[in-house]
Amino acid sequence: MKSIANLEWRYAVKKFDDQKILEQQKINILKQAFNLTATSYGLQPIKLLIIKNKSIQRKLVDHSYHQQQIVQASHLLVICIDTNLKESDVEKYFERVKEIRKTPDETISSFREYLKTVITEKSSQDLILWAKNQAYLALGNLLTVCANEKIDSCPMEGFIPKKYDEILGLKEKNLTSVLVVPIGYRAEDDMKTHQMKVRKKIEEIVIEIS
Amino acid sequence: MKSIANLEWRYAVKKFDDQKILEQQKINILKQAFNLTATSYGLQPIKLLIIKNKSIQRKLVDHSYHQQQIVQASHLLVICIDTNLKESDVEKYFERVKEIRKTPDETISSFREYLKTVITEKSSQDLILWAKNQAYLALGNLLTVCANEKIDSCPMEGFIPKKYDEILGLKEKNLTSVLVVPIGYRAEDDMKTHQMKVRKKIEEIVIEIS
Repeated sequence: MKSIANLEWRYAVKKFDDQKILEQQKINILKQAFNLTATSYGLQPIKLLIIKNKSIQRKLVDHSYHQQQIVQASHLLVICIDTNLKESDVEKYFERVKEIRKTPDETISSFREYLKTVITEKSSQDLILWAKNQAYLALGNLLTVCANEKIDSCPMEGFIPKKYDEILGLKEKNLTSVLVVPIGYRAEDDMKTHQMKVRKKIEEIVIEIS
Repeated sequence: MKSIANLEWRYAVKKFDDQKILEQQKINILKQAFNLTATSYGLQPIKLLIIKNKSIQRKLVDHSYHQQQIVQASHLLVICIDTNLKESDVEKYFERVKEIRKTPDETISSFREYLKTVITEKSSQDLILWAKNQAYLALGNLLTVCANEKIDSCPMEGFIPKKYDEILGLKEKNLTSVLVVPIGYRAEDDMKTHQMKVRKKIEEIVIEIS
């Protein structure tokens, strides 16, 4: 595994090659990887939108501080969170546990009731913050998988979620957009390709205690 | 790249082999990977503690709802955030940019001033939330790198940050603990090793728009 070489290869692409399209096989890897992200309690309060539609991408540029990568990119990932998580989602999760692991109901019932309490006792604002954390976790996974698979990407917080939600009809789906990641292939003349990566010195960011 | 096979191999380890120690070369990969995590504006408001000290690990178990992985694990990662980010950190970042990229001051000064405004205009609570998001992003990266490097892990939100901060002397360093990840090797008799992974169906978590 060339983990470090791959992470060194990755950078936030400023200009994509708008003629190159990602193979569906690579998109399928990202779909699976997203679904395999670890999440709090395993509840997966997140969704991944994969947009490959220039007309929609063009509309979204205006609500992304005119960052052209949104429309240049082969595909646009939008990581969303559920805005209406409720007891029935916990029940659905445990139905899935039973389906996959054949776990008997008596083994899971007490944890299921505990999780329902966790969810219902959180304020809706806290639930949103909790779900947003999971969206960032998924982003961390996706960016690293992209690097491993030689897919170029550019993680973005700079966009207007409300406008994205409107254009993509997310409110009706009880979703809201949290993070945006154009993916594809870097343009040959992306001036950022050859810029050195700026990071802290390791000893400034890591503390070893033995 | 066997991205999906590696993510399938990964699971939240319930019991570590407390006799097996991770090689320093693997720890070095995680240190570098953590530092290579993408962060908002490149500001890296995060720190990684790597603890390999059974007496400290034993103390922390009591503040981790008695999850024994904390003490069984070869090493314990604690992802922290800076609690006192200020203008001078932005300046330090741009000094680093100049050092690494030899960028002239006139090229960066307007973005530097903009970033200072971004930081100073955020409330301290918003700065904490922003930094926490970056901690989750780093966790996502680390879990995937662990999987690629065949390092076992268990991501945890279930611990008392205040107690961790006390025991590890984090307050004096203007840090607070956000996430905990025991790492090492799974025990042969970890009953979770052979459990099937529970995830949503792909079509329930991914929406493709073309």
